[in-house]
Order: sequence, then C-alpha cells, then structure tokens
Amino acid sequence: MNDSIKSIDGGICAVDVKAGGIREGKYGVCVISFPKTMATGVFTTNKIMAAPVKHTKNIMENNFISAIIANSGNANCFTGSQGEEDCKDMINHLSNKLNINKNEIAIASTGVIGRKMPMKTIYKLIDNLKLENSNEASTNSAKAIMTTDTVHKEYAVEITLKNGEKVKIGAIAKGTGMIAPNMATMLCFISTDAKIEDKKLLKDSLKKAVDKSFNMLVVDGDESTNDEVILVTTKKVDVIDNDGLDSNFQDGLDYLCIQLAKMMASDGEGATKFLEVEVNGAKSYDDAKTMAKSVVSSSLVKTAIFGGDPNWGRIIAVIGYCGVDFNLDNISIAISNNEEKVYLVKNSEILGFEGTTNLKDAEEIMKNDEIHILIDLHLANGSATAFGCDLTYDYVKINAEYTS
Amino acid sequence: MNDSIKSIDGGICAVDVKAGGIREGKYGVCVISFPKTMATGVFTTNKIMAAPVKHTKNIMENNFISAIIANSGNANCFTGSQGEEDCKDMINHLSNKLNINKNEIAIASTGVIGRKMPMKTIYKLIDNLKLENSNEASTNSAKAIMTTDTVHKEYAVEITLKNGEKVKIGAIAKGTGMIAPNMATMLCFISTDAKIEDKKLLKDSLKKAVDKSFNMLVVDGDESTNDEVILVTTKKVDVIDNDGLDSNFQDGLDYLCIQLAKMMASDGEGATKFLEVEVNGAKSYDDAKTMAKSVVSSSLVKTAIFGGDPNWGRIIAVIGYCGVDFNLDNISIAISNNEEKVYLVKNSEILGFEGTTNLKDAEEIMKNDEIHILIDLHLANGSATAFGCDLTYDYVKINAEYTS
Repeated sequence: MNDSIKSIDGGICAVDVKAGGIREGKYGVCVISFPKTMATGVFTTNKIMAAPVKHTKNIMENNFISAIIANSGNANCFTGSQGEEDCKDMINHLSNKLNINKNEIAIASTGVIGRKMPMKTIYKLIDNLKLENSNEASTNSAKAIMTTDTVHKEYAVEITLKNGEKVKIGAIAKGTGMIAPNMATMLCFISTDAKIEDKKLLKDSLKKAVDKSFNMLVVDGDESTNDEVILVTTKKVDVIDNDGLDSNFQDGLDYLCIQLAKMMASDGEGATKFLEVEVNGAKSYDDAKTMAKSVVSSSLVKTAIFGGDPNWGRIIAVIGYCGVDFNLDNISIAISNNEEKVYLVKNSEILGFEGTTNLKDAEEIMKNDEIHILIDLHLANGSATAFGCDLTYDYVKINAEYTS
Repeated sequence: MNDSIKSIDGGICAVDVKAGGIREGKYGVCVISFPKTMATGVFTTNKIMAAPVKHTKNIMENNFISAIIANSGNANCFTGSQGEEDCKDMINHLSNKLNINKNEIAIASTGVIGRKMPMKTIYKLIDNLKLENSNEASTNSAKAIMTTDTVHKEYAVEITLKNGEKVKIGAIAKGTGMIAPNMATMLCFISTDAKIEDKKLLKDSLKKAVDKSFNMLVVDGDESTNDEVILVTTKKVDVIDNDGLDSNFQDGLDYLCIQLAKMMASDGEGATKFLEVEVNGAKSYDDAKTMAKSVVSSSLVKTAIFGGDPNWGRIIAVIGYCGVDFNLDNISIAISNNEEKVYLVKNSEILGFEGTTNLKDAEEIMKNDEIHILIDLHLANGSATAFGCDLTYDYVKINAEYTS
C-alpha cells in the first residue's frame, strides 16, 4: 500500500452520505442518498442487459443523481416490458419516500434471471428502510445486496493528497459468482468527498480503477447481465491540481477497488483459497492481462490450487494456448504465499521435478489460503495481476442448487 | 444417421491394419502398423507443443508412414532436449522391433506435463507388445492410451459409396479433460481402406470432420499441448468420383468423429450427463459455432445441468456475452432429451416461469443423462452443434488429485 493511503472504517458512510439496508428472506433492498451530485458508472457489456442497468445508464447520462436503490434476490433481467415497469415502480416508490425527483435515482438489481419481481416485498422493504450516516448503516446496506455472498463487503480509505489535504473514498459491494471476464455479477457503490466536476475526468478515473480490479477478477468466467459500479461525489475536497487529477487520489481509488475485488475473489462461490496471478516481462500490458486472466480462469489450474498441487504443467499449458507471445527458452514460474517464494521453472529450467526440494517447498506454500502464481516472460515490461480463487466441490454444490 | 453409414465392430482393426496395446500401472503403450502409406494429421495449436507432436508434424510433412506409437502416463511436454531425445529413442526402439525405417513412425504422448519420460518402462512395454488385426487388438490399443478416461473409445463404420461400393473407417481415441476449445487432451487414430492419393484432399477431409466433432467438444476449456488426430489410408477402395471426394465418405468420416467426440463428452472428467447445444437461426455458421461452444462451456450452465435445474437465465446470460448478434425480441430456448422437447422461452416469451407446466416438464427431462439445449435466434440459417458435459463434484475431485 502506498504511504498516502490509509484504510479507515465506515464503508460507504466514511463519506457524508446516508445509507440503509434491510432483508426479508432471500430478498433485500439497500438505498444510498446524498445531495444531488455528479456521478459516473461502469456497466455490464452483456448484450442482454437487465432493465435496471438500462435505466441507470440512461439516467446517469443525462442527470445528476441523489440516490441509488438496489435489490437482491431477483435480477429483473429478461423480464420484458413488465420488468421495465417494475423498475420504474421501485423508483417511484423511493421517490415518494425520500421526496426526490425520480430522474435523480439510479437503480440496480442482482439475483435470479427471468423471474417476475416480488414487488410487494420490495415496497414493504423500502417502506421499512431507515437511512443514516453510520458504520452500521453501511454494513446493513452491504448485507442487503448479498446473494450467494458469504460475507458482506465494504471498504474505505483516507488519502493524503499531494498538497497535504485529505480526501475519503468509501464503498459497499457484492459479488461471488458469474464473475468475469468483464466485471462480474457484482454491484459496487462508491462515495467520495472529492470534488471532480469534469464528467469525463470522473468517468476515466473510475474506468481506470475498474480495469485494474473488477475487470481482472475471474471466478467462473460467466459474465453477468446486471453489473454496475457507481461512483458519487459529495464535492468537498478539491483533487484537481495543475497536472489534472491528483495521482494519489487515483492510487487510492485503484487500491479501494482492488481490495473489494480481492474480497470477491476470496468469497468466490465455494472458494477455499484466494488466487493471484501476476505476469511480468510480457511484450505489452494487454499481453500480460490476457495471460494473467487466462491462468486465473483455467479450471485445471483452479482445481490444482484446491488440491494443493503445484502442477505447473497446467500453467505451462495455459501459457501456450492463451495467444500471447513468449520465448519458450526463457519462462519463469514461481509460487508464493505473499511471503515465501519458490521457483518451479526458472529461465525455462525445470526446478520443480518430482522429489526436488523446490517441489516440496511449493507443496508447503500451497497449504496456505492465499496463493500467488508469478510468471515472468523476460521479454519486455508488460505487467498485470489477476484475481481469482480455487474451484471446489462447494462451487458445484452452490451452483447446482441455486434456483431450486 | 445417414442411410449410407452403418456402424460395425472392430474399431481401428475394422480396416486391415495391425494394432496392439499394453499397460503397466499408469503407463501404457499402443502401436498401430500398416503398409507404408500416405497419412494426414490435425495437431494442437497450443504454442507449447509436446516433443512427439513436433516430431510427428515434421515426419508427416515429408514422409509416408507405416506405424504410429503412442504412450500414456507422461505427455513428454516441456521436457526440453531430453524430451526430444526420449521421443527419438522410443521411435528407434520400435523401428528395431518392427524392422521399419524410423522416418516412417508417427508418435504421440498423453499424460502429465513436465516430467521425465519413464523410458525403461516404455522399452519393456514395446518389447512385450504383440500386433495383430483383431477386435481385441483394437480394444487393447484403445485401453493402452487411457489416462483419466473411465471407458476406452473405439468406433468403426462401413459406408456405401454412391457407386455402391463399400469402404470402412475405424478408430481408437482417448480424451476426457483439458478439452477444448481447439481439440482436446485427446488422441485419435483413424484407419480407412479408402484410396485418397491427393494429400490436400485427404487433409481437407480430416479437417472438415475434426471441425464438426473434436473442435466442437468442450469439457473444461483448457487446451492441451499434446492433441493429435491421425488418419491413415490402406488405399484399397477408390472414393474419388467426378465431383471429387464421394460425399458419403465425408459424411461417414464426420459421423465417426462425432461419435468419438460424444463418447469423450460423456466420459468428460466427472461427468454424469452428456450435454449437446444446438444453435439454429444464427447470422452465420461462425456465429452459431461461437454461441454453441460458449453455452456448452459455461460453468454455470454445466452446474445447472448437474443439478437438473432448467435455469434458462444462465443460458440467456451466455447468449448475451458471447459476442454474437441476435434479436432480443425473438429468441427461443428449448430443452430436450432427444425425444421430448419443451420450450422455456419461445420467440422471447417466457414459458418457463416458476409454477408453469413447461418448467415442470423441463425438470423431468433434465433427469435424463442426455440433455440437449436448443437455441433458435430466428435470424438466418447459421447452425452448429457443440458437445460437452455437466460440471460435477467428481470433476473437481479428479483434477484436485491428478498428479499427487
């Protein structure tokens, strides 16, 4: 972690916004409200986009917003004109409750696809919802949007800008499965007291952070219809200097998003181990990204991680098929638990043969619940890191039983 | 099945070639021998290509061949110059035994990557091998190349050509995991008594059959370093007419390869159900192929199949992210066990809501061990069919424990 970034309590309420969350069985509703402000979002690229995502993209294109509402338990996707109506009705209900314009409300849904929305339950949850600025309110909001998540996800940082001033960023998120290759079945709402009034600058900043975090996260390779990341600003601290956006702010936003992406990976459906794949020495950033995501996605690598087996042959196979340039005579592969590091292959020499100390050391490292695979292609300076988890019996169990 | 195609006994020995197979523990060797002849092959596109694949590609480019040798238990991949030596030593050993030129021997390996070849065992197996033309010899050969396969795979057909003459094609194969998107951890050796002396025609014919079969097969999305499909001809029956290759011959070769691909899918690591995904009405064949392979590859679809859950929302999500054009207002999705067929979505109307007869009927169908997903995009005439299986506890078990 960069010295200018400090992790703090409060999740999305670390910044001066109000939040609330409430659940009834498998359904939940969370609301975040704030003074009308500029916001930006990154949305699923799935061509079958859920009604709330379409609505929110449209709203945020043309309006400042003052609230976000999200429900869990039903994705309101492939639900036709009824789904669009339900989406508007949810917004109208909140608009009446909070006495704000319906064009200032962003909306998100997560859950099962192709089911009618349980509107009666949702109205009741909205009616019973209390909004406040507190650690508990952030936690309740994070809990309200969980589906197969086993832990709620919130994070906040305080960043010291180059001029010494301090700015905060807070967030809640959900996501465990149907994750990757672009975003995830994930929602993430981020607040900051930074003042960024240039819409393009704000959007670019969020896009950069998402590219390094949620877009490098793979749980099962299925891309959801409902992904939304929304960043809202309460405009209290100026973060623009002569060079544009203060780079410490960007580092802080990147860091926050990476922490949340790691939480999602660790909470990947059925996961017992967090997996990080770092590729260095690639011809380009894009090459490094492709290879890192391919390795972290491989079912055979993921099951080997689950089995605690340093089977680098499976890593070599992915390196070969992922479509990226390399020099067969100079590849290095190491395994680490983020403390110790052991080479299985170094400059294409195999150090991890059966019976070697290296293989035994690698087996020891793989007993940890955080595993890093480090690949060096020794070609140029392209680097990227991808996040994921092992593939386990429980992934199968969770997803074989999800709707029934 | 086309009327001109009849399935027959004998596997690769349905044609007049000699075969033999022998195992010791996890290692096996199979040999097929035949009068020196033209042969063609399709090989892995993985950039990290095992030593035997490189050798065989090179041999078959420049020579007629008279034998194929394959071993299981060790892939001889990423084994450097030692691997190349071992490959040549295996060939020399067989060359001495059979008294044939070493430049007439194709070679293949399947098993763990990055391990030294167990040459002593392999020599012993070659020494003890007996070759003959019999049903038993074909079966033993098929058994000798098994790794995580639970059943051996052989198939043979007799084809009636347009001129009334009959020609045979026989094969043995292996493959269960590290399968797709291009070929598989698979080996397939095919013999035919057809006479095709135009090398390009022979290669094109095999490529066409592989594209419809092994290249449409997905077990886990990992592409192997060792895939080989080899077709040898004993040149007894002319299959060329005025239009070029007799189309009944091509249909027969396609059919044989599809049967073997289906056997591999059914024997997919840990599989309990065979899954076939047929896409019709796409803008092009390529679009249909992309969508069919994306659906059959989806971990979420595969776990839903395992769970017997007609969760068409997950199918819709894949349709949305696979990158193919469709009309959101006219998509149909049906489930079939190859006898009954029930629509879950018809012309974008949802028929498979909770509580509907269609959903209940679909649940009944999904109790079968052969499930077909039928997607119609109602746009144009692009059609393709992909083959796969469910994702189960046992897939995880097999691959978490493979090398250890």
